Amino acid sequence: MADISKARRLRDRIAAGEIAHIMSAHSPLSARLAAEAGFDGIWASGFELSALYGLPDVSLITMTQHLDMVRAMAEAVDIPVVADIDTGFGNAVNVIHAIRQYERAGAAAVVIEDKTFPKVTSLVAGGRQELVPVETFQGKIEAALAARVDPDFIVVARTEALIAGRGEAEALRRAEAYVTAGADMILIHSKQTTPDEIESFARAWRGGAPLVIVPTAYPEMDEARVRAVGAIKAIIYGNHAIRAAVTAMQATFAQIRRDRGAAGAHAGIVSVEEIFRLQDKDGMKADEKKFVR
Amino acid sequence: MADISKARRLRDRIAAGEIAHIMSAHSPLSARLAAEAGFDGIWASGFELSALYGLPDVSLITMTQHLDMVRAMAEAVDIPVVADIDTGFGNAVNVIHAIRQYERAGAAAVVIEDKTFPKVTSLVAGGRQELVPVETFQGKIEAALAARVDPDFIVVARTEALIAGRGEAEALRRAEAYVTAGADMILIHSKQTTPDEIESFARAWRGGAPLVIVPTAYPEMDEARVRAVGAIKAIIYGNHAIRAAVTAMQATFAQIRRDRGAAGAHAGIVSVEEIFRLQDKDGMKADEKKFVR
Amino acid sequence: MADISKARRLRDRIAAGEIAHIMSAHSPLSARLAAEAGFDGIWASGFELSALYGLPDVSLITMTQHLDMVRAMAEAVDIPVVADIDTGFGNAVNVIHAIRQYERAGAAAVVIEDKTFPKVTSLVAGGRQELVPVETFQGKIEAALAARVDPDFIVVARTEALIAGRGEAEALRRAEAYVTAGADMILIHSKQTTPDEIESFARAWRGGAPLVIVPTAYPEMDEARVRAVGAIKAIIYGNHAIRAAVTAMQATFAQIRRDRGAAGAHAGIVSVEEIFRLQDKDGMKADEKKFVR
Amino acid sequence: MADISKARRLRDRIAAGEIAHIMSAHSPLSARLAAEAGFDGIWASGFELSALYGLPDVSLITMTQHLDMVRAMAEAVDIPVVADIDTGFGNAVNVIHAIRQYERAGAAAVVIEDKTFPKVTSLVAGGRQELVPVETFQGKIEAALAARVDPDFIVVARTEALIAGRGEAEALRRAEAYVTAGADMILIHSKQTTPDEIESFARAWRGGAPLVIVPTAYPEMDEARVRAVGAIKAIIYGNHAIRAAVTAMQATFAQIRRDRGAAGAHAGIVSVEEIFRLQDKDGMKADEKKFVR
Repeated sequence: MADISKARRLRDRIAAGEIAHIMSAHSPLSARLAAEAGFDGIWASGFELSALYGLPDVSLITMTQHLDMVRAMAEAVDIPVVADIDTGFGNAVNVIHAIRQYERAGAAAVVIEDKTFPKVTSLVAGGRQELVPVETFQGKIEAALAARVDPDFIVVARTEALIAGRGEAEALRRAEAYVTAGADMILIHSKQTTPDEIESFARAWRGGAPLVIVPTAYPEMDEARVRAVGAIKAIIYGNHAIRAAVTAMQATFAQIRRDRGAAGAHAGIVSVEEIFRLQDKDGMKADEKKFVR
Repeated sequence: MADISKARRLRDRIAAGEIAHIMSAHSPLSARLAAEAGFDGIWASGFELSALYGLPDVSLITMTQHLDMVRAMAEAVDIPVVADIDTGFGNAVNVIHAIRQYERAGAAAVVIEDKTFPKVTSLVAGGRQELVPVETFQGKIEAALAARVDPDFIVVARTEALIAGRGEAEALRRAEAYVTAGADMILIHSKQTTPDEIESFARAWRGGAPLVIVPTAYPEMDEARVRAVGAIKAIIYGNHAIRAAVTAMQATFAQIRRDRGAAGAHAGIVSVEEIFRLQDKDGMKADEKKFVR
Repeated sequence: MADISKARRLRDRIAAGEIAHIMSAHSPLSARLAAEAGFDGIWASGFELSALYGLPDVSLITMTQHLDMVRAMAEAVDIPVVADIDTGFGNAVNVIHAIRQYERAGAAAVVIEDKTFPKVTSLVAGGRQELVPVETFQGKIEAALAARVDPDFIVVARTEALIAGRGEAEALRRAEAYVTAGADMILIHSKQTTPDEIESFARAWRGGAPLVIVPTAYPEMDEARVRAVGAIKAIIYGNHAIRAAVTAMQATFAQIRRDRGAAGAHAGIVSVEEIFRLQDKDGMKADEKKFVR
Repeated sequence: MADISKARRLRDRIAAGEIAHIMSAHSPLSARLAAEAGFDGIWASGFELSALYGLPDVSLITMTQHLDMVRAMAEAVDIPVVADIDTGFGNAVNVIHAIRQYERAGAAAVVIEDKTFPKVTSLVAGGRQELVPVETFQGKIEAALAARVDPDFIVVARTEALIAGRGEAEALRRAEAYVTAGADMILIHSKQTTPDEIESFARAWRGGAPLVIVPTAYPEMDEARVRAVGAIKAIIYGNHAIRAAVTAMQATFAQIRRDRGAAGAHAGIVSVEEIFRLQDKDGMKADEKKFVR
């Protein structure tokens, strides 16, 4: 739409040495709120969308459902939407199809991870192979690059090597291999509850491509600390939109239920007029005045 | 599915003299939160769904989008879902199609209103006829009754006569005509900011069918006051879920943006584990242990 | 995507004095077959899509369903897709929303008609006003022009004045008013079973904009005859894809049912390999060889 | 809906010793044509739906797209719809989710196959393990049985053992293991171009459950020959609807393109009135007369 694409703007920001703060969203409305708050991008999160449907995050939400949401969010905001596409919905052939669909839907970037499909939470059947072979994932990355139309469209490779307990050396080896295959950025994830593992990885990183983190479990990893480490260029807030929304709905619902009426809850929540504003009711009314005869 | 349908349970509750408290929702998650809070039903609100998409509530959201949401909500909760179908997506033929779809999607009730399609907010073109003729709307009600399969499926007729400035006599006349045509309940709406108009209508009501109200603008109309009036058997909280969600997301987003990190916001919102609980992650893990080999 | 947009190519073709032959389709597959046969565009027909769902063509198919189909067709073929959007899903505000969605979905053009919503087939209630006022429809056209991003995106105004029995003078007057409002082309439709009415209209046309016809009921109106008249620049074949498909499925199903086996029917229909070709199975296998490791 | 479910009717038919003839469909319209032709069920084919989208049949069509089609077909016909769900969209947890969705969508049966996800056509990477372990697939079947609400809902286990070149003994062993796990029927598939392999399997079958075949490559396997073998109780015609439709569209499109007009093609295809009949336009008009005022 714009002369400079959203993907280009995200690339430029990172190239300029800025840290991109990217907020999770599960709806065009939450995306708009994040844009208004000043975030640099939207994380079209599989986790938040699963949660919105009340479903566990184990590949139950389909690509159609996620894509519809990405499209609606990309229409609703001017900042880049980064789409979480898990393992890419299958093998490299499925990735090609997915990249075409997500780029057309208006995403500026996708994140693909090196886990096997489908997601499993418990260690079943005596220790399952959780990561795909490096060359398999390189094939997915190469497929993604071949499929994108806009060369600025960003392909982020996410390695789960630390999560899978493979250690830093393996994580670095994988991340480098993914950059070799063409990944634009690396998302590195840890299941520790302190930033140590991530900081150590970032300090050891020689792969060139910018790093992205999702510090849900170690929220003290803020911009100041990220800058101190270097290499990390984007922070994704992975689930704070849905957690905030749940917090308030629980409180408001409990109060209305207790009071058997809404008078008490009314004052503590935004007005209906604020919702009208977020829906651009005024813009619509202007269109109505202009065109409805 | 259940031996006693959700529609039957809602009818029984009202027949027993209870007041049904029905909370708006815009997602299966918000529906589940409302069910957990003890509400008696879910208002599958066109307004909230429009807001979720960041769109004004003027028939831009399609029946497909609303129906998909109703279906997902009906799957997520055990309490009845009351679907707001505006004017029924066209004339009585469209109503027939809609009723079949909504009943199959798991709705327990629909609310149809007597306005013209499409919605207009401003008074354009020298004062538009806002309400359809009584007999036209009776045709829609009769069509809805003819289309439902389960005789317990509830058809609520909503009159906008007070909103349109037609006065109480016209509102009563219309509501009675709709009951004559077979409506199971009457939703009566007012644009005043006090309950007076609604209370007056309810006191004057001789139509037999239970009344439903949506006291957004007069939240002091709580259960105690409703009982004092009589006739009103259900209170719909029409937009409190989305207003609560927006309130909290604005605050959380602002804090994270200001702090350039999530550490400060972390403590004020529910934990990731609480989201897992709402997704029934434990149930899924039990299934995984049992069936994934 | 392409350097020269599909909309531009359709405009250029018509500007060059060629007749555009536009075939109806109800699926990406039928669109691809039309493209392979050499047609100049695809008619994303509301009638065919309704028929595909086994539903009468009275606004039961939603914009979401139609849009999903338009998007999938635009992805499947390189020729322009002309989207039939009936009355535009409401008033001018709904048209604005629709134009944005259809343009993003990859349509090259839309056709909007000057009938009232919803469609009615019989003359009910003592003769219904079937056409919207001229200025109302001009508002819709102006709204469509204001909403399009690509100035080459084509807005075709369809007048049902002849269908509604208003006569040629009114049809000409309306068509001219629509061109004045900015319509790029005029679709003129007749319910007669000979081309006379259309030919007469075309000969009398002084509105400047190219005419489009849908000669279902007068198929003798072919390119030669169209050229003889002048003014008409595009022929839409409005329902031949679904009629052909039904014809063959009825015959094949009857034979298999009669034979209680498929051996007899097998030879009369294309091979499974031909379906593979239409699915680009070879391209997919090449991708598989290249990227799946 | 009906007193006796579609699933029950299919079970009863087979229990009565009849052969069920089940025709592929890719739309409610093709399903309706198959029902009118007298078929006993509809095969909601992943292959045909992929082809309808012009996509290769390698898990690109999502569960949402397939489910929407199954729902629309189940609404359009009174005969049972048998849904092809490939490998079940993931592991046993995904199967549970899928079964709930398909049963709610109105399917009478599902077919799950014992291949790995995603589908691969070529033998890549030195010979890929194509079949999941028996106990893994048993877990999927048990999960499916646990998830169904109607005990009559039919779970068909499809073994690809013959396709994968594992031989008859392995195919029999697997099929028996699947019946042990609770499968209601076994679909046995062969890639040979004669019925020999299937006939041999059927003669050797001692597993009790009825067999289902898809004799695309050996269409001489008709009802007479099926009866001679015994054990086989259902024949699925896996792709004849889409092949018939393509055949006719190619011919009709070529003729119209050649003639530069539709006059010649007009006579060879069903009339528009026949499409109206299939859309139940008369029923809609009756509703219009009755309810639209």
